[in-house]
Amino acid sequence: MNKIEPRTLKGFRDFLPKEARKRMYVIETLKKVFESYGFEPLETPALEYEEILMGKYGEEGDKLMYRFEDNGQRRVALRYDQTVPLARVVAQYQNALPFPFKRYQIQNVWRAENTQKGRFREFLQCDIDTVGSDSPVADAEIIACASTCLRKLGFNDYKILINDRTIFKEISNVTIGAIDKLKKVGEQGVIEELVTRGEYDTYQKAEEAILQIKQSTPTDWINQVIDKAISYGVLEDEILFAPTLARGLDYYTTTIIEIEINGYEAGSVGGGGRYDGLTGLFSNQDLPAIGFAFGFDRLIEAMEQFNLFTSVQNKKVLVLVSPELQNLSLDIVSILRYKNIDAECYLDINANFEKQFKYAEKKEIPYVVMPISQTQVELRTKNQAGEIVKRTLSIEDLPNAII
Amino acid sequence: MNKIEPRTLKGFRDFLPKEARKRMYVIETLKKVFESYGFEPLETPALEYEEILMGKYGEEGDKLMYRFEDNGQRRVALRYDQTVPLARVVAQYQNALPFPFKRYQIQNVWRAENTQKGRFREFLQCDIDTVGSDSPVADAEIIACASTCLRKLGFNDYKILINDRTIFKEISNVTIGAIDKLKKVGEQGVIEELVTRGEYDTYQKAEEAILQIKQSTPTDWINQVIDKAISYGVLEDEILFAPTLARGLDYYTTTIIEIEINGYEAGSVGGGGRYDGLTGLFSNQDLPAIGFAFGFDRLIEAMEQFNLFTSVQNKKVLVLVSPELQNLSLDIVSILRYKNIDAECYLDINANFEKQFKYAEKKEIPYVVMPISQTQVELRTKNQAGEIVKRTLSIEDLPNAII
Repeated sequence: MNKIEPRTLKGFRDFLPKEARKRMYVIETLKKVFESYGFEPLETPALEYEEILMGKYGEEGDKLMYRFEDNGQRRVALRYDQTVPLARVVAQYQNALPFPFKRYQIQNVWRAENTQKGRFREFLQCDIDTVGSDSPVADAEIIACASTCLRKLGFNDYKILINDRTIFKEISNVTIGAIDKLKKVGEQGVIEELVTRGEYDTYQKAEEAILQIKQSTPTDWINQVIDKAISYGVLEDEILFAPTLARGLDYYTTTIIEIEINGYEAGSVGGGGRYDGLTGLFSNQDLPAIGFAFGFDRLIEAMEQFNLFTSVQNKKVLVLVSPELQNLSLDIVSILRYKNIDAECYLDINANFEKQFKYAEKKEIPYVVMPISQTQVELRTKNQAGEIVKRTLSIEDLPNAII
Repeated sequence: MNKIEPRTLKGFRDFLPKEARKRMYVIETLKKVFESYGFEPLETPALEYEEILMGKYGEEGDKLMYRFEDNGQRRVALRYDQTVPLARVVAQYQNALPFPFKRYQIQNVWRAENTQKGRFREFLQCDIDTVGSDSPVADAEIIACASTCLRKLGFNDYKILINDRTIFKEISNVTIGAIDKLKKVGEQGVIEELVTRGEYDTYQKAEEAILQIKQSTPTDWINQVIDKAISYGVLEDEILFAPTLARGLDYYTTTIIEIEINGYEAGSVGGGGRYDGLTGLFSNQDLPAIGFAFGFDRLIEAMEQFNLFTSVQNKKVLVLVSPELQNLSLDIVSILRYKNIDAECYLDINANFEKQFKYAEKKEIPYVVMPISQTQVELRTKNQAGEIVKRTLSIEDLPNAII
């Protein structure tokens, strides 16, 4: 049989243990915070009827969606985001769900993006949404929850930008779109675009329009949201009214939010807003909704930059083996496990110690135990300077030396 | 716009919060045990090049696989199991991985099964595999790990059936296949099949053949595996040599395992075995391997049957709101959260208390707090008989009443 070249599709990733473990740590942290705010887990299928997803994400979405015909000649599509499936669920199980329905969802989505822009075709979304409440407390809660997530991950210098879409009500979509790029292309760039596209006759008029937006004051609604968010523990100086925040998506109605981490320049690590007309796609009952999503890959990247994965402690132990002492090694592993210390025995009794040490190195196992007699072991670990420290201990004293 | 009927594809499931939380609990428990035995997390993409998966699961597999052409005219397929992707990973990252490579993987797979048999088309697999060790300790470790998983989930009456495929070496595949059904169709059924299919001329010969298999004694290899498993903490009376255990899959070479929970009749909750030729599909280096997988849906079902989800404690609190006391309610939530108690405030200040109580009921929130003055609250909870118990407390004393 011919060998098949082992390879992955462009835009798709394997996560080997080291990366997978970081991802798990972030997911666990987010879940705990989401739960603590009363958000409940929801899972939806990877595949949906095509008609459920089509036409919900604009032309671009329909183009980038993975769609095909299944073996039963049904047109199906892979999950493209978690909001449309949420809308379907809310319509489908109206009587079974508590309202307001507060759910979180952490699943992969698939988009046939241009990978040259550093985008992935399979990536994780982490969403929280509240469906069925028009109270500003719902918005405040989402903001407070997102802020708590960042603190728990170890970030302490970030800005929650907030705006009210209604301040744009007399402004054309083209201008909103241009304003949205203010940070990326600068004020001059935005003015150029507005004049080129014929939105304003002169540079001066375009400049005045931008100035007017910049000088907007918070709406009553936004003041209420900010006020309640602060009651919920968000710090006054981390939440900021940002009149030029526009966010691309058409469906936002009032509140829009984005979070930026100071010093992390790739872009916001999350965003969201209040939107209507969601459940109305699938039922006659239209419910108000507010949601927020973290960009998982950016969160990971920002955590790397600020070295926040150091807290992912690894207390594992490798017990070395030799043909003479294999049963003793197994006993030591059992003793450690009994004390709730994660431990494993090297599997090949004929491997020399050097090979076994290399295994520990590669798996980043911080404690290596070498049995030296029926009662004594040598414990090797590294000190903060990275030097190997060796201690001779009785087996009895070993667990306490590790805990 | 026409309303779209909210529905899911046959064989695909939504998991609403109550179910999703049970699943999360089982996943978390398995992960912790897997990690404690030194297995490391691996994630692979949902989509692979078709050629990676095709032809690896027999005719049936190729037929049930979700395959299609992506937007770039590549033939792709959805993950069908986690073993073939593991083989690809081992070949693709040979130099980056520690060997023996011990990994766990908990991801969905997709198979266009006949759903009338109670099968799903999207379901979770929970695999542990050790690639690159031919030591019986590797097999023992996998068995001990699976056993610990069951204990941690609350099961205490199960049997680990173990056999060695080599005892079948002089027996035809047809006979092995028939023997595999011994439990399902009974001895008489197996004999019928063997004679009907012409494997044996007479009923007596077929009966003798079965008797001979039944009287097989454990091989040296299996004795070693059992011995090491017991050193690893597996109880002597929970591991059982089962000469008629055959397991369907062709690729097993020596050890085969299945775990049955006494009193749960739907079938084994997990199985596995030792197999070769896996990595050889993608590289010139052929590594020995042993693996085990839990049937996640069966585990959940068995846990329901034995009422093992009671330990999924829910310590959450709902704080009621009224127009007069909303800020106080938010303060109470903040106080509880500060004490690490998960708490949420009802969002609609105009909802009457009855509606708010119903919300708590539906979300199965066990503690409801009703502010009655600036300093006092009423705490409602249920006693073991399911009766509502009310206590009046100062806000100061509230956290201690919940912890």
